[in-house]
Amino acid sequence: MLSIDTIIGRPIYTQLYWQIRQKIMSGEWIVNAKLPSSRQLANDLQISRNTVEQAYQQLCAEGYLYSKSRQGYYVGKLEGPFINQNACNTSSTVNNNISCSNEKDQYRYDFRYGKLDYKYVPSKIWKKLMIQCFEEEVDKNVSYGEPQGEIGLREQIMKYVEEYRGVKCQPEQIVIGAGTLHCLGLLCNILRQFTSTVAFEDPGYGKTRAVLHNAGFQVCPISVESDGINVQELANSEALAVYVTPSHQFPTGAIMSISKRLQLLEWAVRKQAIIIEDDYSCHLRYNVRPIPALQGISPMANVVYFGNFSKPLLPSLRIAFMILPPSLLNVYKTLYRTYNTSVPYLYQRTLERFMEEGYWNRHLRRVLQVYKKKHECLMQSLKEQFCDLIAIHGNNAGLFITIKVNSHLFETDLIQRAAGYGVRVYPVSEHWQRIYKYDRKTVLLGYSSLDLEEIKQAVRLLRKAWFD
Amino acid sequence: MLSIDTIIGRPIYTQLYWQIRQKIMSGEWIVNAKLPSSRQLANDLQISRNTVEQAYQQLCAEGYLYSKSRQGYYVGKLEGPFINQNACNTSSTVNNNISCSNEKDQYRYDFRYGKLDYKYVPSKIWKKLMIQCFEEEVDKNVSYGEPQGEIGLREQIMKYVEEYRGVKCQPEQIVIGAGTLHCLGLLCNILRQFTSTVAFEDPGYGKTRAVLHNAGFQVCPISVESDGINVQELANSEALAVYVTPSHQFPTGAIMSISKRLQLLEWAVRKQAIIIEDDYSCHLRYNVRPIPALQGISPMANVVYFGNFSKPLLPSLRIAFMILPPSLLNVYKTLYRTYNTSVPYLYQRTLERFMEEGYWNRHLRRVLQVYKKKHECLMQSLKEQFCDLIAIHGNNAGLFITIKVNSHLFETDLIQRAAGYGVRVYPVSEHWQRIYKYDRKTVLLGYSSLDLEEIKQAVRLLRKAWFD
Repeated sequence: MLSIDTIIGRPIYTQLYWQIRQKIMSGEWIVNAKLPSSRQLANDLQISRNTVEQAYQQLCAEGYLYSKSRQGYYVGKLEGPFINQNACNTSSTVNNNISCSNEKDQYRYDFRYGKLDYKYVPSKIWKKLMIQCFEEEVDKNVSYGEPQGEIGLREQIMKYVEEYRGVKCQPEQIVIGAGTLHCLGLLCNILRQFTSTVAFEDPGYGKTRAVLHNAGFQVCPISVESDGINVQELANSEALAVYVTPSHQFPTGAIMSISKRLQLLEWAVRKQAIIIEDDYSCHLRYNVRPIPALQGISPMANVVYFGNFSKPLLPSLRIAFMILPPSLLNVYKTLYRTYNTSVPYLYQRTLERFMEEGYWNRHLRRVLQVYKKKHECLMQSLKEQFCDLIAIHGNNAGLFITIKVNSHLFETDLIQRAAGYGVRVYPVSEHWQRIYKYDRKTVLLGYSSLDLEEIKQAVRLLRKAWFD
Repeated sequence: MLSIDTIIGRPIYTQLYWQIRQKIMSGEWIVNAKLPSSRQLANDLQISRNTVEQAYQQLCAEGYLYSKSRQGYYVGKLEGPFINQNACNTSSTVNNNISCSNEKDQYRYDFRYGKLDYKYVPSKIWKKLMIQCFEEEVDKNVSYGEPQGEIGLREQIMKYVEEYRGVKCQPEQIVIGAGTLHCLGLLCNILRQFTSTVAFEDPGYGKTRAVLHNAGFQVCPISVESDGINVQELANSEALAVYVTPSHQFPTGAIMSISKRLQLLEWAVRKQAIIIEDDYSCHLRYNVRPIPALQGISPMANVVYFGNFSKPLLPSLRIAFMILPPSLLNVYKTLYRTYNTSVPYLYQRTLERFMEEGYWNRHLRRVLQVYKKKHECLMQSLKEQFCDLIAIHGNNAGLFITIKVNSHLFETDLIQRAAGYGVRVYPVSEHWQRIYKYDRKTVLLGYSSLDLEEIKQAVRLLRKAWFD
């Protein structure tokens, strides 16, 4: 579909020209397809017919279209490696921003995973510390800073992960980067030296799987059981590296048992393989103390530990870190000898001070309470509204749950019906690699940005959407 | 060499343990090598003998060392894929930070390329705008923001590159990322769909070459002539992509002639190949107007344009951008559909306002004058001190020059002798791929962080170092 946005201030002619060009380049509009008449398109988009004609003629001149006299305009034949690469994936291409904004308006309650409640972001303190750091070190802002991240921040991270997660490391092992996906991208080049196959939980976090896939790795799916990844299946695979989320498996919510942990570590030691431990929401366990990380259990296993500050603190910070085992440090140093850091100096210093002065610990304690309440409220509401019509997975931790709905409805129906009531819930299918193993009856609900009243309302609407 | 830092607050025992372990894991200390006696090491490092013994014994217990009674400690035998990966590159591993700080103290004048003069950083305005943006949009900081970068900033960048560089694009083509190397890393996954070989200027910018190399590409060296890359040599190669720096070749300073530009574009169209145009210091031309970018010349060629805000504005910002040709947009969207941005929302908004309110244009005009004066001063001083004892390359643009010294001294001698006088100059060798083609008599001088008096002093010292 073509669309025109009159707010963004770009000429209508230009918008139209680009959208059509894009649809042709992408293969969405195939060769010899007939375009709508300029009259019809002008009508549909509520723009002038002259504008449409102008765009059509420009595209003709450039060879994207051809015209037949008295019949109209048709898509021309384009060839070469850049044409029609991903015809299936093009609908969101040019008018990405426009469709996004429409989507937002459509929903009253958005169970988006990863969006936080801004009321609990320590903005005032952050601002105070940021200005302090800025004023104290104006001259430092002109240099690139430490490539691996500022040493002061790395020392704070070392203390924090040891205390909270039982992770044992030195600051030399810590690499600070602009988000988990960025750090994982750096790790990919290290992994490339050892293996071309990486095992991955299935279902597993679609975003991190995409990073491995994009970097050219063969991603080998391994089943997830109620206590974590199936280590036997892993051992039977060719993989010499595996990505896992032991503290709260994404998206099943499984917590890896200690026996699984030991099996997994034993596998890593035996095969001299690499474990990528993504501890993405380790802080948020609502009934018991967080279980210590894999990384701290055996110094003999090569565990790369991932942590981040987005979910508990502020997604827009773009600060995450990975902790390399000593065995990979040299490869890291060799590959990244000349790289600059990807995180602004000021943000690193502000975060360092935020941790040093105790705000980080205080913040973690606070959000634990906040999200625990939201979690309880969601669980309670779901039980009240649905009783045994649904099965809930991943309770007592993190910022999302998944629910399997016992009805004839499939994932897409569930999402669409919820949307009809102004509630946005999310598919689980994109986190499956072997999609045929998925029952297609489960949706994901992230509850961190909604308040208690909104959660209750939204769940009531879900009940109506799915069972009335 | 082992070293102990008493300032950083980590136990001496731990520091020693880690450094020794690292040297063994890295292969720097080979199997059966004898360690210094605990008495001797304690003496050397001025620490207690007990501490050394404690570290040695721990390492024995873990199998890194073994001891022979009355003879001392030896390096144990370790095997596996993680051992001895890059034995040549280990000296900087553990005590990286310590050695860095020593290096800094050693130099009175540092011709480091890329470091700016903090007197000309618009800190006050930046701070004002940053606080404004922070206060106006506290709630926006809790979301991840637009994956490709905020649309407002992309619109500002579009206007700027069109006006300054003749680059033609739509905001949809612009990807904002945490530095040029990060953006290039994203591009690598796109290139991977088309080719496994990328042609690269030789000599060329070592940092960007490393990104391609790390991502698994075969990097094919192509000679550089006085008017840019040798297109004939490129055409004879297998490469379907090439990295070039047309506006100021790194490190030769060559400016690509228009006939070369047209040849290069013709090659790209004919082979449907991709040109990566890194316009890294396009703003700084001191005698003529900047030459428009390759990107704007032919819409038929696939040019990926790279620009950044580090060099002219503030390295620690970590904001760069790439502009994709329409033909690559779909591959980008497919690969990066689920990625988050790598640049903090606040920084993007601040930069947007900085550009929107005219500060960026004003800043560019100002630094052009500032660095022009420094450049002239350096050229003048070099001519006065050296006459025809040196040949200068890359004049009249950018933030560095290279000088070839007509004497019996080689690059390493030149650097060492300069260091003896407290002046740091930089090797060119790391920018060569076919190192045998390099005369080894050239060094690189970045002059942006030194003031006029410092430049004059430093050049006087260089004369002494090299010819007295």
